[in-house]
Amino acid sequence: MAPPPAAAEQIETTTTTAIHEEDDGQVVNPWEVSAKDGGKIDYDKLIDRFGCQRLDHALIQRVEHLTSCPAHVFLRRGVFFAHRDFAEILDAYERGDNFYLYTGRGPSSEALHLGHLIPFMFTKYLQDVFKVPLVIQLTDDEKFLWKNLTVEECQRLARENAKDIIACGFDISKTFIFADFNYVGGAFYKNMVEVAKRVTYNQAVGIFGFTGEDHIGKVSFPPVQAVPSFPSSFPHLFSGKENLRCLIPCAIDQDPYFRMTRDVAPKLGYHKPALIESLFFPALQGETGKMSASDPNSAIYVTDSAKDIKNKVNKHAFSGGQDSIEKHRQLGANLEVDIPVKYLSFFLEDDAELEHIKKEYGAGRMLTGEVKQRLIQVLTELVERHRRARAAVTDEVLGPTALLWAVGHFTRCSPSGAVLHASTLPRVLLVE
Amino acid sequence: MAPPPAAAEQIETTTTTAIHEEDDGQVVNPWEVSAKDGGKIDYDKLIDRFGCQRLDHALIQRVEHLTSCPAHVFLRRGVFFAHRDFAEILDAYERGDNFYLYTGRGPSSEALHLGHLIPFMFTKYLQDVFKVPLVIQLTDDEKFLWKNLTVEECQRLARENAKDIIACGFDISKTFIFADFNYVGGAFYKNMVEVAKRVTYNQAVGIFGFTGEDHIGKVSFPPVQAVPSFPSSFPHLFSGKENLRCLIPCAIDQDPYFRMTRDVAPKLGYHKPALIESLFFPALQGETGKMSASDPNSAIYVTDSAKDIKNKVNKHAFSGGQDSIEKHRQLGANLEVDIPVKYLSFFLEDDAELEHIKKEYGAGRMLTGEVKQRLIQVLTELVERHRRARAAVTDEVLGPTALLWAVGHFTRCSPSGAVLHASTLPRVLLVE
Repeated sequence: MAPPPAAAEQIETTTTTAIHEEDDGQVVNPWEVSAKDGGKIDYDKLIDRFGCQRLDHALIQRVEHLTSCPAHVFLRRGVFFAHRDFAEILDAYERGDNFYLYTGRGPSSEALHLGHLIPFMFTKYLQDVFKVPLVIQLTDDEKFLWKNLTVEECQRLARENAKDIIACGFDISKTFIFADFNYVGGAFYKNMVEVAKRVTYNQAVGIFGFTGEDHIGKVSFPPVQAVPSFPSSFPHLFSGKENLRCLIPCAIDQDPYFRMTRDVAPKLGYHKPALIESLFFPALQGETGKMSASDPNSAIYVTDSAKDIKNKVNKHAFSGGQDSIEKHRQLGANLEVDIPVKYLSFFLEDDAELEHIKKEYGAGRMLTGEVKQRLIQVLTELVERHRRARAAVTDEVLGPTALLWAVGHFTRCSPSGAVLHASTLPRVLLVE
Repeated sequence: MAPPPAAAEQIETTTTTAIHEEDDGQVVNPWEVSAKDGGKIDYDKLIDRFGCQRLDHALIQRVEHLTSCPAHVFLRRGVFFAHRDFAEILDAYERGDNFYLYTGRGPSSEALHLGHLIPFMFTKYLQDVFKVPLVIQLTDDEKFLWKNLTVEECQRLARENAKDIIACGFDISKTFIFADFNYVGGAFYKNMVEVAKRVTYNQAVGIFGFTGEDHIGKVSFPPVQAVPSFPSSFPHLFSGKENLRCLIPCAIDQDPYFRMTRDVAPKLGYHKPALIESLFFPALQGETGKMSASDPNSAIYVTDSAKDIKNKVNKHAFSGGQDSIEKHRQLGANLEVDIPVKYLSFFLEDDAELEHIKKEYGAGRMLTGEVKQRLIQVLTELVERHRRARAAVTDEVLGPTALLWAVGHFTRCSPSGAVLHASTLPRVLLVE
């Protein structure tokens, strides 16, 4: 086991902050996101409360310098706005040390919406520019524990969601996708137990807000999401590389899991995982939290038709434009609350065009209808591109196994249709 | 999934009895056994508190009738003295339905003492007379969570203990031994999560006495010991036999785990596991609880030499004989507290000889030295027999895998030295 990194003694100061007792009226945890009085999430307060750091311009410039690539839209426009130890990842990269990426998804719905795609689009960019291995966890066990679904249904959703994730275009020679119900065991289970031994129930209550009436499955779950942060959980990928650093791109509601993980990591001789954390993608109805899978009109899904997208944007996208054309020409749009402009700032690549739209729309020279028209175009192209990519991800691409295991090298190791245990997978040395 | 058995609605009445709040001053749970004021365990009170049933003479006669074999010494002499649903197991057996046995051990010490052997000796008898499959769980994860040992040390102890267990002479074509750090995963993990979802933290506190300062590994563990009660946890053994009943021979301190399991089983469509539960084997110093692995003079180990046994019995076995020979001839021995007689009642097969010793010793015609002499003889033979059997259990018999997996058919499936996942094992249909 590697010696603890230098930062080992630094305790994550807010680990025991009770996230269910919010002084500022906003609730942000892995299962609930709501702002005070239905207003907007105050991200500055969230950074203070969670104890993470703001991702500043200098850091973004450093990424561009190190990778010789322009920063991703999500970096340039502050979608990924906070981090923990991202500078240390860049230091290590600059020294020639490698790292790996870890992200994931709880497969609770059949189709993904645009908000779900954001961490995967950004992770693809990180993999492309840093050329690093990536592990993607599908927490089918978590969804079984929190939702009223059967194990089999959660496994099926994991497999369907994996197709959407693969469609994002990861480097299949460097990507390992796994679902917990299949992969938990062996080295991964050992790490789960190592983590569980180092977190008291009271600490877990402080971090996650569990009550005595919650079932023990909830209490047992956090180590499952923690251990992909440790390279030894993937002996077929990272054997002999126990000192490898891990960077986790995720939405900021996942921060509690990794505060816990960062406190435990040095006790096990690992680097604390670094984080790069995003805002929530707003609902069509307005920016009060995350999009909701339970209200189909609150989100654009990757399965929506061009007609669906047009209807949803036109009917449901909250506009910051004025009530009448006359008033609009006079006062201009309120860009702070305008959803079409928010959405364009996520998905319209062209910085100049976006600036132009904001300027003209804000001054009342451009109308809501025109902005929505452009958004419909951008989203339709995005969703159409995704649909084509997903259609190519057949069950055969996913692998002949009945259960999802992996992408790329890993599915090709299973010609017999048998479910492979990680330790029987050949050791594909992904890390140079 | 099979329909819930008829007893599904009957709730294990004492599930929520807080076992750490003992009205009667005795503490019995999987981690602590102590009587009131250092006295003897009151087993009648334990039966009442736990809500299990006394194993009566009629049931023992029924075992003899059904198996056409004399009842085991441990049945005849009340070592296995309590049960849950054992009569239902016999009913099913009589109807021609099969069942399987499940027992286990927490591998916290290098060598076993005689108390550790008792459930295995009895389980071997049950397997022999009923000719049924057996699964043996080695909870190396539990020992890691409760003791100050590394994962690797717990795994090593599991492997060493397995040799002692195999030496008890199980039918290798019908026995599957597994250690949790290797076997947890797949179908087994799914069942763990199914159980965990159905037990609240408050219920777990009621059953096991956890506090907020206990780590979450302890809270997570009970489902691991629960799920070997369900045939679907062993798809390579019991595929298509999800309705198979399970009988668990164990010491009565394990009852809390299975009270919990019995409450959950019908919710998952399984039969409640039946139990047959033993007294604790007394320490050499007297019958106040279990033997202690931490005091080598409190127990006879299977590694003790003939000289060790002689010394331990002569020096440390608490005698019910009188202080002087004159007084002894006059008053006789107090058999209620005499450890040599207790030990003989466990291990001296000959009922007539045991009765003779009790009569003569109780009347003062036989001296403590003579009884100890006979005990030394019996124990030396037992330990010597075990030592020879264990010497035959080489690493090769245990299997070429670096990690313990299985006995019999199962080790022979792994000629390559690779660690096998359960689902890659051939389906050996053990259940007729």
